[in-house]
Amino acid sequence: MFVAREFEAANAKYVASFTKGDLQLPPQRKVAVVACMDARLDPARALGLEEGDAHVIRNAGGRVSDALRSIIISQQLLGTREIVIVHHTDCGMLTFTDEVIRDKIRGELHQNADHIAFLPFGDLVQSVKDDILWLRNSPLVLDVPITGYVYEVESGRIVKVEDQ
Amino acid sequence: MFVAREFEAANAKYVASFTKGDLQLPPQRKVAVVACMDARLDPARALGLEEGDAHVIRNAGGRVSDALRSIIISQQLLGTREIVIVHHTDCGMLTFTDEVIRDKIRGELHQNADHIAFLPFGDLVQSVKDDILWLRNSPLVLDVPITGYVYEVESGRIVKVEDQ
Repeated sequence: MFVAREFEAANAKYVASFTKGDLQLPPQRKVAVVACMDARLDPARALGLEEGDAHVIRNAGGRVSDALRSIIISQQLLGTREIVIVHHTDCGMLTFTDEVIRDKIRGELHQNADHIAFLPFGDLVQSVKDDILWLRNSPLVLDVPITGYVYEVESGRIVKVEDQ
Repeated sequence: MFVAREFEAANAKYVASFTKGDLQLPPQRKVAVVACMDARLDPARALGLEEGDAHVIRNAGGRVSDALRSIIISQQLLGTREIVIVHHTDCGMLTFTDEVIRDKIRGELHQNADHIAFLPFGDLVQSVKDDILWLRNSPLVLDVPITGYVYEVESGRIVKVEDQ
């Protein structure tokens, strides 16, 4: 059975107790979270988000350069004025290089992915610092408060990464 | 006060009852969800996801072309073998065009964003169909089950979009 069918069953239960049908489009807490797609991280539960609170942008590694389109839309059209970055321990992005995944794709899919920057990193804390700096240096991103964290998948804790 | 400080307080409560410190890196249910960043949509609650279950990739509109890097990593390195797409009613992507946001950025930030495709859409159901087709036509994406939904922010319900 497809997992999608299980999602439909779970959603029926969600609908049965749903009470949030009148929320507005712009995020109420005016914040955009950029987090890794990792299955063990649930940004809503880990950060105390309710429906309507915040934009949540997620990708492999929680890399901000890959989130730029969404961040611009979040700020320019929907009024968010703070950014929170969440990377995490035991991240898959620590385990490979562009060369490794490109070779795998060439070998197994017989395709060339040399045009894709997969954005892996070798140092977790530095990856958060790099992403904060990347945002601060982007002329397309507003000068807003930016806070970066490492989420510990072992403990559920977010640990703040000090800004440069 | 920054919202980040409120996240830290909420996280302390999450940590206090955290019991999932031994989850594995690969998503247990072998599925990648691609959903909009919209604040009103909580994919975990709406689809019944627990920590460890699924990759959750989110961006403005839940557009798959902007999620390609993450989808490749999810499939090639972390073993997911199903994709679920979730767009939603009252989406901000229905409200503008590339020209509108590029003009706003030119006028207010004095920057040129003509090189960025913001991926807005005019028809919600069609946007889901387009994204399913985009994945099926991508040689870098495995031939896996793909299901698309429209999430109704008014009711909490996911409505399946029939494949072409």
